[in-house]
Amino acid sequence: MSTATAEFELAEPMMLQWLTALGVDVEFVRGEGNTLYFVGPDGAEVPVLDYAGGYGSLILGHNHPGIVGAAREFLDAGTPVLAQASRQTAASRVATALNTVLRREFGVDEPYFAVFSNSGAESIEVALKHAEFDRVLKVKALADGITEHLGAARAALADGTAVLPDAVAAALGLAPGSGIDAVAAEVGGRVAALAARPSLFITLAGGFHGKLVGSVQLTHNPAFRTPFATMAPQARFVPLDRLDALDEVIAQERATVPDLVVDDGVVTVVERDFPVFSAFVLEAIQGEGGIRVVDRAAADRIKAACAAVDCPVVVDEIQSGMGRTGAFFAGSLIGLVPDYVTLAKGLGGGIAKAAVTLVRGGRYRPEFELVHSSTFAKDTFSSTLALTTLELLEADGGAAYRRAADLGERLTALFTALRADFPDVVKDVRGKGLMLGLEFHDQSASAAPSIAQAALTDTFGYAVAGYLFRVHRIRTFPTASATTTLRFEPSVLLTDAEIARLDTALRALAAVLRDQDEEAFTAG
Amino acid sequence: MSTATAEFELAEPMMLQWLTALGVDVEFVRGEGNTLYFVGPDGAEVPVLDYAGGYGSLILGHNHPGIVGAAREFLDAGTPVLAQASRQTAASRVATALNTVLRREFGVDEPYFAVFSNSGAESIEVALKHAEFDRVLKVKALADGITEHLGAARAALADGTAVLPDAVAAALGLAPGSGIDAVAAEVGGRVAALAARPSLFITLAGGFHGKLVGSVQLTHNPAFRTPFATMAPQARFVPLDRLDALDEVIAQERATVPDLVVDDGVVTVVERDFPVFSAFVLEAIQGEGGIRVVDRAAADRIKAACAAVDCPVVVDEIQSGMGRTGAFFAGSLIGLVPDYVTLAKGLGGGIAKAAVTLVRGGRYRPEFELVHSSTFAKDTFSSTLALTTLELLEADGGAAYRRAADLGERLTALFTALRADFPDVVKDVRGKGLMLGLEFHDQSASAAPSIAQAALTDTFGYAVAGYLFRVHRIRTFPTASATTTLRFEPSVLLTDAEIARLDTALRALAAVLRDQDEEAFTAG
Repeated sequence: MSTATAEFELAEPMMLQWLTALGVDVEFVRGEGNTLYFVGPDGAEVPVLDYAGGYGSLILGHNHPGIVGAAREFLDAGTPVLAQASRQTAASRVATALNTVLRREFGVDEPYFAVFSNSGAESIEVALKHAEFDRVLKVKALADGITEHLGAARAALADGTAVLPDAVAAALGLAPGSGIDAVAAEVGGRVAALAARPSLFITLAGGFHGKLVGSVQLTHNPAFRTPFATMAPQARFVPLDRLDALDEVIAQERATVPDLVVDDGVVTVVERDFPVFSAFVLEAIQGEGGIRVVDRAAADRIKAACAAVDCPVVVDEIQSGMGRTGAFFAGSLIGLVPDYVTLAKGLGGGIAKAAVTLVRGGRYRPEFELVHSSTFAKDTFSSTLALTTLELLEADGGAAYRRAADLGERLTALFTALRADFPDVVKDVRGKGLMLGLEFHDQSASAAPSIAQAALTDTFGYAVAGYLFRVHRIRTFPTASATTTLRFEPSVLLTDAEIARLDTALRALAAVLRDQDEEAFTAG
Repeated sequence: MSTATAEFELAEPMMLQWLTALGVDVEFVRGEGNTLYFVGPDGAEVPVLDYAGGYGSLILGHNHPGIVGAAREFLDAGTPVLAQASRQTAASRVATALNTVLRREFGVDEPYFAVFSNSGAESIEVALKHAEFDRVLKVKALADGITEHLGAARAALADGTAVLPDAVAAALGLAPGSGIDAVAAEVGGRVAALAARPSLFITLAGGFHGKLVGSVQLTHNPAFRTPFATMAPQARFVPLDRLDALDEVIAQERATVPDLVVDDGVVTVVERDFPVFSAFVLEAIQGEGGIRVVDRAAADRIKAACAAVDCPVVVDEIQSGMGRTGAFFAGSLIGLVPDYVTLAKGLGGGIAKAAVTLVRGGRYRPEFELVHSSTFAKDTFSSTLALTTLELLEADGGAAYRRAADLGERLTALFTALRADFPDVVKDVRGKGLMLGLEFHDQSASAAPSIAQAALTDTFGYAVAGYLFRVHRIRTFPTASATTTLRFEPSVLLTDAEIARLDTALRALAAVLRDQDEEAFTAG
């Protein structure tokens, strides 16, 4: 396949112009481990060290021989890929394997049921949809119970076995002497009003959960979110560093409905909690928001607040999961036991598109299987590669997780030393394992016009990515919603030499930024 | 990989129970052309003739050698799959190839821009999202223009070069003598009120456009839709067989806003159309709604109605596209030129998950590339297999399309003859090419309890699917929202012998239904 650069670009032309302006518009023709290759002007392959790692999809690197081998074996066997509505053993085995990991890392006994999909965004959609489905069924059960109790109260009043004291009318804000009809209308009206409320999710400021028209409302970046504000579920955002706001939101939004109970011959009002909250949704480590770690104290606080109102917790492990942080689930390092947990990115081994939403048994509604489906979900190809990926990660007692933790410590030490040496350039180092972020200080006052201009137009991280690519042949990008933070998400195959190359490149970059060196920053 | 039937099912356990009850819970271990194989109790492969065709994903059959060969070649070359933010030539070429087809089939000169995604549902989400993005930008431009004109009118009034006649207040429903402040407040209020309206889509009753929380509101089946009614975009449904309703909906929903124009020294009110409609969304042939064909008259009427209010037309070709109907785009057979057209299912050649939304140049907003993205979209693996699939379909001057049309005529003749012979059993034959539906008469009065019971519980098509599988080793399923219609979507590799087998099986089925033969219906 030639590069075909002469063709008019019909797939995201503006994006290609921008990549060209940054000097990163090469076509990669080969990938292996942490290295991508493009063909240079002389026809020879030019290696580029890839710290972007498919935005976190390549925990085992590009084209891992084990995954490629499984794909070849699959093709050789002539296994059918799409045989919906049959026994899909590969998907079933992925579910079982993930349950083994959940049990080990979270110490849970309960099974988690798996709903497969095709992308991280879809796995979030499934979680939101299932959570809302569950909530609607709970609302219905509550409303049915209230209706039934109302009938019982009416019957008891009719046959004289109960009385309706004025306290009932008073509790409902009705005039003294209001009869059962007025009481019933008030109770029914309150239930109906709450049932008609839009679904409400709570989530973290800075969070990123995909860009589908449903899920986009939980992605905090206003540029991604506000154009579609009238289209989708409502979300209230709380800041990770001020979780008091969570208690405030819950206090503002929680609601009760009156239920009539005949107690010892007297009709009384009991207030019942109404299931207002569809779910609390968060990433175990925020990715696109700038690699921001949720700590154990925050996890505990979120769990307690949600438990108090029976609000399920959806943990998005699309980027943080699959072993990158030193555990398979980053949430397991902070005791963040999920009601729902989503995986995608690395699940298909970097070749197939696989995604899954795991739902805790106690929350799972089997009827959901009748209202949700997808042509491509549970396909044998992606499920088989997912199974192979899980086997490779779990091999040797989880050696991959230990390796990720170890490499993460070394990279963190590198970044921390860099910050110590360039305190005016490097602002912060964040993350865990192989999900790391390096935040830069604002450079908008730089004497180098390209540096200042990039900082002023919120494209600083992209300009830095261009420099690293052109001058050092290192590939990474900023996080999507926090563009002064560079992401580092290499695979567990990272070598000492590759770490040393990064050190050299970042030190050169830091010097260029400190020296406000226009020529060096725009070189290459 | 063993069948592992003893494992506790964690991936859709209820679905598996149901498949088991129908007797279709086998694991297919090999697929080739239109045949799927499972391993029987004696260890030998049992062939099953597959008319379900991956719900329309297998226009070239299971594991087409050309697609499998391209996948192998891809793996051998070590091509990187995930190299986002680089020049992604394979995706670009798919876009170019699809433009060639669009030009040929629709006679359009304008380019269509491609936004890639990972499933049919996502391709619809992209269309909805882009259409809403475009609408919001148009609203903003309109509101900015009105604000600017208001400023100009104020200035002209202030410097005495214009007068404000009472006709302006009257046109706006204000009291005579209202000044420019009151007029400005009224104009601003009307614009703001319309801008705050939720996004509104129009679509066809019976339509199916995926099940994500955004797109699910356009899927007509209430069981799929109503639990999430408060979560997503608003849709108004119009029946395909009574398109008068489209004019009614447009008349009810369309709106204008007042714009002040200084004309020859006099401030006057001009009413401007407000972009109320995000899009009209329809399938070129309704799939899950029971294989219902949109004819040229309906297409013309929809085009005219939408053009009158500048409402873009989104044509969902996820099931009907990729050559199945005798043309690559089913819409091209009825002159349904799309503003947006979506493809998925067969695009990845039955192995990879590929999906794309094509947006007509005149509607395309390049800024959309900055607000929408997906980790897996434009990946090299699915794009390469999509390119191979397009090459295979386009080979020999589109022989595959002619073959699909020819096979479709033969299957239609078979179904029509069946209806003639069993008029009390077969109600209708619908579809085009290899997208065909066979609708059965209501069998709820059958003397055979299994037949009557299935009809009464809206599972008739599934019970028939079980019979065809168990007794005749033929696999198909009903359409998801119209379960008395069986779908037939085989590949272009369909043979005379395979057609004859279907004829035999359907005649046996029709006789069983006519004879109300419990024993025969539950055999196998």
